[in-house]
Amino acid sequence: MKMKIYGDGRSGNCDKVRLVADYLRHPYDWVEVDILKGGTRTAEFLAMNPQGQVPVLVLPDGRSLAQSGAIMRYLANGTPLLPNDQRTRAKIDEWMFWEAGNHEFFVAGCIAHMTFLGKARETRDPMRVERGDRALDILEDQFGRADWLAGDAMTIADIAILVHTRQAPLGGFDLAPRPSVRAWIARCERQVGMDALQV
Amino acid sequence: MKMKIYGDGRSGNCDKVRLVADYLRHPYDWVEVDILKGGTRTAEFLAMNPQGQVPVLVLPDGRSLAQSGAIMRYLANGTPLLPNDQRTRAKIDEWMFWEAGNHEFFVAGCIAHMTFLGKARETRDPMRVERGDRALDILEDQFGRADWLAGDAMTIADIAILVHTRQAPLGGFDLAPRPSVRAWIARCERQVGMDALQV
Repeated sequence: MKMKIYGDGRSGNCDKVRLVADYLRHPYDWVEVDILKGGTRTAEFLAMNPQGQVPVLVLPDGRSLAQSGAIMRYLANGTPLLPNDQRTRAKIDEWMFWEAGNHEFFVAGCIAHMTFLGKARETRDPMRVERGDRALDILEDQFGRADWLAGDAMTIADIAILVHTRQAPLGGFDLAPRPSVRAWIARCERQVGMDALQV
Repeated sequence: MKMKIYGDGRSGNCDKVRLVADYLRHPYDWVEVDILKGGTRTAEFLAMNPQGQVPVLVLPDGRSLAQSGAIMRYLANGTPLLPNDQRTRAKIDEWMFWEAGNHEFFVAGCIAHMTFLGKARETRDPMRVERGDRALDILEDQFGRADWLAGDAMTIADIAILVHTRQAPLGGFDLAPRPSVRAWIARCERQVGMDALQV
């Protein structure tokens, strides 16, 4: 029996898990959950994940695991995407927690505002714009000094941060003055076999 | 040479690291950094952590590690606070990423609003109030079913979520209707040897 990934096909956080599973050739069944139609609020879904969010990984023995960061770690443990070297793992953790608290809510929030909700760039939450720009500046600084976030190869930290960063222009952010971020996005896309996003 | 922890004594995220280091009896020197006076914006600090945030762990060999979640993982790896069992580790990851993206910004944001900034309860950001209340409800649900977040003992996930949850009343949140959360706070406080917070 294969594992199942419950996710909304439009959600960047679900994309993170799908990218890691595909890259590592883990076989799985995708179960589509429509967030906007209340798919994460049903009794059945909440029994599986009381946090009420996708993605959720369900293992063949029925155990479930939520939070894209936790699922990525679980799927990638010991592979080149999350190698056993303690120094590299610590830096992967650093960037993944940074993303969860300092990037996702701001950048993804603006993307959702302009795409899912179809609202204007001018009506974005100024706090999210400012914090999102600050996050992109920190990435520009990082990729001016290194090709990858942790160690000398792509890891789950890069995939976690890639997904919403490459979509940042859909949320009204400007990547033109951030050439190092753009070069890193292209590196990641080549390695995972994604087409460049046309914005 | 001992490791150093750079932190602001008023910061809950710094408390998380200090609690773990103390509980595990790791020797360290604390280096106080005043966030409000720009201590995380100096060239010296940014050279250590380009993300511009405390806490930062600096190891005797000079390497530095940021993000409280990453530091807690590093310090606790293989101890009872982060045991080697993969099932328990996955659930610890789940709750720590949940906290970073769904709890800290909202609950700690309201605490900062009313304490550091000294503003009124009525002027809290309504979005943060709603999301903070939702996070506390999810914890109440969890602790109605289990004593701890992951496995059958206190882990770094509990410490990560404890710090701002016990201070939630300082941010205008009501723990009175959340008896299971209050019981878990008391369990944690007993185990780490903290006095109950008088609000």
